Amino acid sequence: MHTSDKKEFTIGVDIGGTNTVVGAILRDGTFAFKSSFPTTGHKNVEEFIKRLIDSIDKIQTTIARGSRMCGIGLAAPAARHREGIIKDPANLQWGTVNLVEILKRQYGLPTAITNDSNAAALGEMKYGAGKGMRNFVVLTLGTGLGAGIVMDGRLLYGNNDVAGELGHITLVAGGRQCGCLRRGCAETYVSASGLRRTAFELLALENDDSRMRDVSFNELSSKMIYDLAREGDDLAVKTFDITGDYLGRLLANAVAAFDPETIILSGGLSEAGDLLLHPTRKSFEENVLGLHRGSVGIVKSTMKDGDAAILGASCLVMEDAAQSALKEFQHRLVTQL
Amino acid sequence: MHTSDKKEFTIGVDIGGTNTVVGAILRDGTFAFKSSFPTTGHKNVEEFIKRLIDSIDKIQTTIARGSRMCGIGLAAPAARHREGIIKDPANLQWGTVNLVEILKRQYGLPTAITNDSNAAALGEMKYGAGKGMRNFVVLTLGTGLGAGIVMDGRLLYGNNDVAGELGHITLVAGGRQCGCLRRGCAETYVSASGLRRTAFELLALENDDSRMRDVSFNELSSKMIYDLAREGDDLAVKTFDITGDYLGRLLANAVAAFDPETIILSGGLSEAGDLLLHPTRKSFEENVLGLHRGSVGIVKSTMKDGDAAILGASCLVMEDAAQSALKEFQHRLVTQL
Repeated sequence: MHTSDKKEFTIGVDIGGTNTVVGAILRDGTFAFKSSFPTTGHKNVEEFIKRLIDSIDKIQTTIARGSRMCGIGLAAPAARHREGIIKDPANLQWGTVNLVEILKRQYGLPTAITNDSNAAALGEMKYGAGKGMRNFVVLTLGTGLGAGIVMDGRLLYGNNDVAGELGHITLVAGGRQCGCLRRGCAETYVSASGLRRTAFELLALENDDSRMRDVSFNELSSKMIYDLAREGDDLAVKTFDITGDYLGRLLANAVAAFDPETIILSGGLSEAGDLLLHPTRKSFEENVLGLHRGSVGIVKSTMKDGDAAILGASCLVMEDAAQSALKEFQHRLVTQL
Repeated sequence: MHTSDKKEFTIGVDIGGTNTVVGAILRDGTFAFKSSFPTTGHKNVEEFIKRLIDSIDKIQTTIARGSRMCGIGLAAPAARHREGIIKDPANLQWGTVNLVEILKRQYGLPTAITNDSNAAALGEMKYGAGKGMRNFVVLTLGTGLGAGIVMDGRLLYGNNDVAGELGHITLVAGGRQCGCLRRGCAETYVSASGLRRTAFELLALENDDSRMRDVSFNELSSKMIYDLAREGDDLAVKTFDITGDYLGRLLANAVAAFDPETIILSGGLSEAGDLLLHPTRKSFEENVLGLHRGSVGIVKSTMKDGDAAILGASCLVMEDAAQSALKEFQHRLVTQL
């Protein structure tokens, strides 16, 4: 058996667009238990919450003998850290959900929530490619494009807890229409859906033969473009080249703004590996400010797919405690000096 | 006479492109002494340093009776905070200057240096429009465009102390040639020199009559464009409108990245006031992500021209001490948790 302090675990919850993963996570970042259920398909958000509570209850009954659940951390799209809520998530008809309050009432434990990119950054800082670094940026390349920023060893939240919205940096003035109702946002170019849009732009622009010409817009997935590129389909390869070029330009801007040591790419699209990383690094070096040339690492997350966010979520309560302590210390400093 | 603690002062030095200002600054941000001399025109950097030391010596002999000089803080272009050096400033043939080491040897006092935009941000935080705010961005609109970022009540330095280079965010892909050898950087549009370039672009594009048509590129100053705009010269007004439009787009991106409470505009070009602020706010609200609409302040620095940087420089030694204490506290936290 474990020693007594090893029996402490926290609950990590990663509410994704498709699945919600619930885990019991030990201090060393290993899972004592992990389960998942579909995020969508519930009658309403109350039904979703009921299912979430069932999953946490199941963890308690399955592994709780002698061990202690000491907090709950959640990662979710459109989460507001300070208010403890999820607010109008883009692809779910949930409105505003006071998830932190509900779970606190249910379990009487410290509970916190943050958006999926911040959680991924926290996960990378504690257990992943950001371990030991004080300044880095994590980009989550999924259906959309999110970012979590760590500066001076702390998550950067900003005034409304929405710092790091790099997916909504304008990359092309007057460019592609974005879900945020504006045009040219980075995530319309650099994301799984951006990849598909670039593929269709190429099918219109070029005459090259491509298997992509037999697939409809709605059917074409980033996984299909990846598989075709690996098989040598020229337009599929070019789709990744162009996406990497956009990503390199975005990263050049992000590095001018934040001066990070390293950029960590995570999320589904980052699984494409060198197919995306090579053109990205090339474009980054061509576009970045001279003083950063050759000195910023662009790496793929070393964590298993999706685990950065849930592991980061499991650290959130402790991170919040640390940030509060720091803030109090800082306040005392300002008063003294 | 002052009470004994009021007699403590720090030296603030603002090394600008044209003039170097040296001041003895009391704890409440008032000047006990202020002088200036030309930055350029010295035989070499050693002569400049000699002149700087003369100025500081003069302060000591003039006001030192019973009062105590307790540190030196410097603001300079191309300053590297951690290394304490100035490195290849764009408009001075200085190479690398170990200014902090030289002054420490001379006076045996705590001495620190940072770039002019960081110093301005610190000045605004302690004595200006950023007082009491935890998250804000200061833009210095001079010949170039710099930025100082305060997040969680601390200056954001990044991995190489060069965070906040918002002047080198690409605003127009393939656009105007920048001093950094790249194209389309924000400072080629939003700065005193950017204003002049926009004026000449308009003279080429439009047929409107304008007094600017009688002035050469080298003669045209931002002050002249300002004066003409105030007199109702349509193209001069339009020059400010377009510059404000670019600035609003840049700020929309900066707000997506940093989520600040307020943007403070300082530097020569900000003196244009509403002529620049009106089109800037309009463009910002049109271009910013919906969740920030109507909630971010864009204000002009309330400090006298240039004083933000020298006052911020005078706080630098104390700010460094606070940051070190915070870092140590944070390190202990990480070890404990």
